[in-house]
Amino acid sequence: MRINLEKTCCILFFLLFISQSVLAYKRPIKSSKPCKRLVLYYHDILFNGTNTGNATSARAANATKLGDFTFGMLVVFDDPMTKDHHLLSPPVARAQGFYFYDMKSTYNAWFAYTLIFNSTKHKGTLNIMGADMMMEETRDLSVVGGTGDFFMARGIATFRTDTFQGADYFRLQMDIKLYECY
Amino acid sequence: MRINLEKTCCILFFLLFISQSVLAYKRPIKSSKPCKRLVLYYHDILFNGTNTGNATSARAANATKLGDFTFGMLVVFDDPMTKDHHLLSPPVARAQGFYFYDMKSTYNAWFAYTLIFNSTKHKGTLNIMGADMMMEETRDLSVVGGTGDFFMARGIATFRTDTFQGADYFRLQMDIKLYECY
Amino acid sequence: MRINLEKTCCILFFLLFISQSVLAYKRPIKSSKPCKRLVLYYHDILFNGTNTGNATSARAANATKLGDFTFGMLVVFDDPMTKDHHLLSPPVARAQGFYFYDMKSTYNAWFAYTLIFNSTKHKGTLNIMGADMMMEETRDLSVVGGTGDFFMARGIATFRTDTFQGADYFRLQMDIKLYECY
Repeated sequence: MRINLEKTCCILFFLLFISQSVLAYKRPIKSSKPCKRLVLYYHDILFNGTNTGNATSARAANATKLGDFTFGMLVVFDDPMTKDHHLLSPPVARAQGFYFYDMKSTYNAWFAYTLIFNSTKHKGTLNIMGADMMMEETRDLSVVGGTGDFFMARGIATFRTDTFQGADYFRLQMDIKLYECY
Repeated sequence: MRINLEKTCCILFFLLFISQSVLAYKRPIKSSKPCKRLVLYYHDILFNGTNTGNATSARAANATKLGDFTFGMLVVFDDPMTKDHHLLSPPVARAQGFYFYDMKSTYNAWFAYTLIFNSTKHKGTLNIMGADMMMEETRDLSVVGGTGDFFMARGIATFRTDTFQGADYFRLQMDIKLYECY
Repeated sequence: MRINLEKTCCILFFLLFISQSVLAYKRPIKSSKPCKRLVLYYHDILFNGTNTGNATSARAANATKLGDFTFGMLVVFDDPMTKDHHLLSPPVARAQGFYFYDMKSTYNAWFAYTLIFNSTKHKGTLNIMGADMMMEETRDLSVVGGTGDFFMARGIATFRTDTFQGADYFRLQMDIKLYECY
């Protein structure tokens, strides 16, 4: 009787252990440590009417007259992402999406875009949206989904302005930390 | 032998129990009860060309001629969020993003925006998107991500129109229920 | 003593088992098999100034002069979704949102929209965003949230161009696979 109880207990335990291994398919989160991290640089060269060769973005909607900080100006982009901050380094991804300015008292923006990876290292996309509070040293946006190698990923994209040369060129460091990986 | 089996069984069991506690970092969902809830009011005052002081939003794209309900009109906003429905109550957050109208037979909108909290109570952001079916009494949008105090949050934002004063001012109640908290 | 240990072990084990059953409320993911799948067709008829009766979408922002592929043209839509590829089949959902073109060297787009279901079969919404790399045979976007019957859903929406008749009409197959269901 005792032996049977023991056996039953251990068998049940083993079944549970196996079922748990299957269930724990989605890696758990540790906020201190991303399951994947990518630090990339985003380069944006705004179309000014003549720089078709270099431009990577263009105004789809002009600024409104609300305030002096191009409130409402909406820019569509297809920008290269590089591993270091050199504009001419080989791109490791494209960033396709849009941003617009949305404050009347200072420059401040909002982004929604897709990072597209198509290299031997990574194939897939990451979808990102959130506020770019340009006056903060760093600001966090949400990685809300992913596909391909980044299937169903979620995480945080931390922006840091690397340089801002008026309306013509700016560069952001994007520190992408995924906390849900599959 | 029997004692060893017993001991092994119990040790394995304890290891499993501990590992489970660590793995269950992400709080499970109960659809009946959010892990966090915020009821806030959104105030939108559209720029009409002269109200620069009061305006909190502006048309980035004008309405098209498709139908009579400003189809395609796109508005960028930086709106105050208050705890009660008084426009002049101290804001507890900002809502930055955009909406546009998208039906030819009635008023109907689509929103994507970020709630930005920067107070002693909450620091961080929530990112929200979805359809605002203005003719419904309530309608649900998705909270697709969060940062800071709302790290990796997900949930539902339920809109209710509180008042709609033509093109100049409208107020929405936003009942934000988070079902994934970390 | 031994019997007590055994009993304790089995009781603890049972408590653990029960707690696990409660915790595993969110169905685990199996990347090979979605928890829900919908294959639908999206029909887009662009407003040309005269087709108010048929049009389902309209340009909110015109194309810029960057390249020859309508870079920056932004279209707001309220499109029918059908089960087969006939435009006149009864719609099973609406797709409300926007897309814009974002490449200077070819046609390429970016989408954010909500699928709205309001039938006896499904009530609720799915929120979707991502890049539509039109030159690829299939491309994956992210389902970033859901409401109603699709409460808190996440997944992948795979686009396939079914037909593309210039600026006037195009049809996409959207294969929506949800991997997180509640």
